[in-house]
Amino acid sequence: MTSLSTGGTIGVLGGGQLGRMLCGAAAKLGFDTSIFSPEADAPAMRVASHSMVGAYEDFDALLGWAETCEAITYEFENVPTASIAALVDAGHIVRPGAKSLEVAQDRLIEKSFLQECGIGTADFAAISQLGDIAAPLKRMGGQGLLKTRRDGYDGKGQVRVSASDSFEAAFLSLGEQPCILESLVPFACEISVLVARTLDGSTQTFDIPRNEHRDGILALSTVPSKLPFEVEFAAVEAAHKLAAALDHVGVLALECFVLEDGTVLANEFAPRVHNSGHWTVEACQISQFEQHILAVAGWPLHTSYRLSDAQMGNLIGSDVLDLENIVPRDASLTLYGKREVRSGRKMGHWVRVGASL
Amino acid sequence: MTSLSTGGTIGVLGGGQLGRMLCGAAAKLGFDTSIFSPEADAPAMRVASHSMVGAYEDFDALLGWAETCEAITYEFENVPTASIAALVDAGHIVRPGAKSLEVAQDRLIEKSFLQECGIGTADFAAISQLGDIAAPLKRMGGQGLLKTRRDGYDGKGQVRVSASDSFEAAFLSLGEQPCILESLVPFACEISVLVARTLDGSTQTFDIPRNEHRDGILALSTVPSKLPFEVEFAAVEAAHKLAAALDHVGVLALECFVLEDGTVLANEFAPRVHNSGHWTVEACQISQFEQHILAVAGWPLHTSYRLSDAQMGNLIGSDVLDLENIVPRDASLTLYGKREVRSGRKMGHWVRVGASL
Repeated sequence: MTSLSTGGTIGVLGGGQLGRMLCGAAAKLGFDTSIFSPEADAPAMRVASHSMVGAYEDFDALLGWAETCEAITYEFENVPTASIAALVDAGHIVRPGAKSLEVAQDRLIEKSFLQECGIGTADFAAISQLGDIAAPLKRMGGQGLLKTRRDGYDGKGQVRVSASDSFEAAFLSLGEQPCILESLVPFACEISVLVARTLDGSTQTFDIPRNEHRDGILALSTVPSKLPFEVEFAAVEAAHKLAAALDHVGVLALECFVLEDGTVLANEFAPRVHNSGHWTVEACQISQFEQHILAVAGWPLHTSYRLSDAQMGNLIGSDVLDLENIVPRDASLTLYGKREVRSGRKMGHWVRVGASL
Repeated sequence: MTSLSTGGTIGVLGGGQLGRMLCGAAAKLGFDTSIFSPEADAPAMRVASHSMVGAYEDFDALLGWAETCEAITYEFENVPTASIAALVDAGHIVRPGAKSLEVAQDRLIEKSFLQECGIGTADFAAISQLGDIAAPLKRMGGQGLLKTRRDGYDGKGQVRVSASDSFEAAFLSLGEQPCILESLVPFACEISVLVARTLDGSTQTFDIPRNEHRDGILALSTVPSKLPFEVEFAAVEAAHKLAAALDHVGVLALECFVLEDGTVLANEFAPRVHNSGHWTVEACQISQFEQHILAVAGWPLHTSYRLSDAQMGNLIGSDVLDLENIVPRDASLTLYGKREVRSGRKMGHWVRVGASL
């Protein structure tokens, strides 16, 4: 069965805000939802029809839960690929598939895969041991970003290095894990492409937001990007190539750097709905979340038509304790229902559209 | 306490599609939700954080459930007013209050209240017994609509009568209940006003949809109405007067007839979010559901700014079995998660916006 029947149950691996918003989109389309997450009382569980607390590595629990779902997706790219493989082996529908996850989980595999697709990236090198750093760093002009290959997000798991630094201190600070060294890109701006792709390869692409980060965390996304058509076209083309090469089903977000001369370099991708696409809820006919659910359900995609200009701002950590002063007047508010405020934690976001911009 | 704290729980009396969509809006704002409904596995329960199955008349169950909520609202106007009174007496916040419900539940009280507010309606007369029909029917030109005072919806509980009919048959067909006789209004079109009102009396009004009914059930709502400004203004003014007179908190929908000469006559109102406002999800910065939750939470309302023209069509009964042929291309789909298809039952709706219109 490739298409879900009306009213079927969609399972989501992960219980955070992306899962929460995916559940809302699934409910709009009449589906029941079920969350599987190691965290009890996770934000998504409080809007889902069903939920189970369990470790991704607990295959008995996972496979038992999967029996209650007609199709399964994930809101989080660090679900172990072995868990996805176990689900697929047991005959469950998992969309996107293991390939998207496998490539996205390892920065070295990811960058290599992008280049194999003919998509430009920053210069990079694999770093397995201390002695691997010096040569590529020299090639990169004496400075770069040393990142763990796995498990980094929101600026975590990376450190800037230059030729005069102690490489040992840098490598130690990342736990001596397998790393990747990336050259610094003198970018003019950052953008992302949000593309939804179906089983049969048809796609819908949202308009491209321009993204601003603070302390490695997305702060603002603004659409339209106001970049020249050729620049946006190059980015969309890259995202389409990538989605096709992964045989991706669902939404995929490709984050790119744009250089002064208009060159687009891919930075990384998320095999899922993405923070930089949250404005689609307010400003588009349907949202990235609904588009993802349509693809997962094997239903035809909707148009990604945008009704309005939009800007989204993240509410990080204690921002949420001062909404009155931080959320712009006339911005629509989304809060994620997280019980605990922690520094650097994404607690919600606001979106301004139309007349208020 | 008049304003809910972030992450509080909002209780909803009723478990249908309106409750389901209210839960989605509450979740967007970071609230937990709890449904109280006599129906097990109700559509809204499958998107709520918590739920309880119970009769509205079971005050023990109702009051126990209310202890878990910071504020309570209703998605359904036939909740007994005694149940609301019991909640209020026990110190619970219920928004809108009992007054809105009490007036909306009885067509005679409703029409009288509208007139007391200075809002024009069709001619009407109270019918307690068979002998009450002849005189007002003559005054109305020999034809009218005989409706039960209570419990009618979607064209149920009403019958058209003319001077040549057997009044006895008509009255019997409605179960000899207390009725109201209303004159037929030769309307040019039907519209509705969706107004949200806060505790402190501030309001936000959505643009007015033009509504078409089939077999007494709403079929299509189209916005803008394309009616002259003065006509829309008169309808909005009436809705504002009514909301203020009821001291209503939340969304209220006033359904009106518009005559050929532009006269606006109020037909009835719903003290809640309304089917004719479903297009606000796709076409507005925020929806009627979110506006209602903001008012219930005691938070400031948002702008009701509309980003696009819109049209909504209901999916009634077996329509839902033939979505491919019934839902227009490029329409966004909403399904209510109802397990059983029944004739005349609202199963979902579609909305077209922007470029697709």
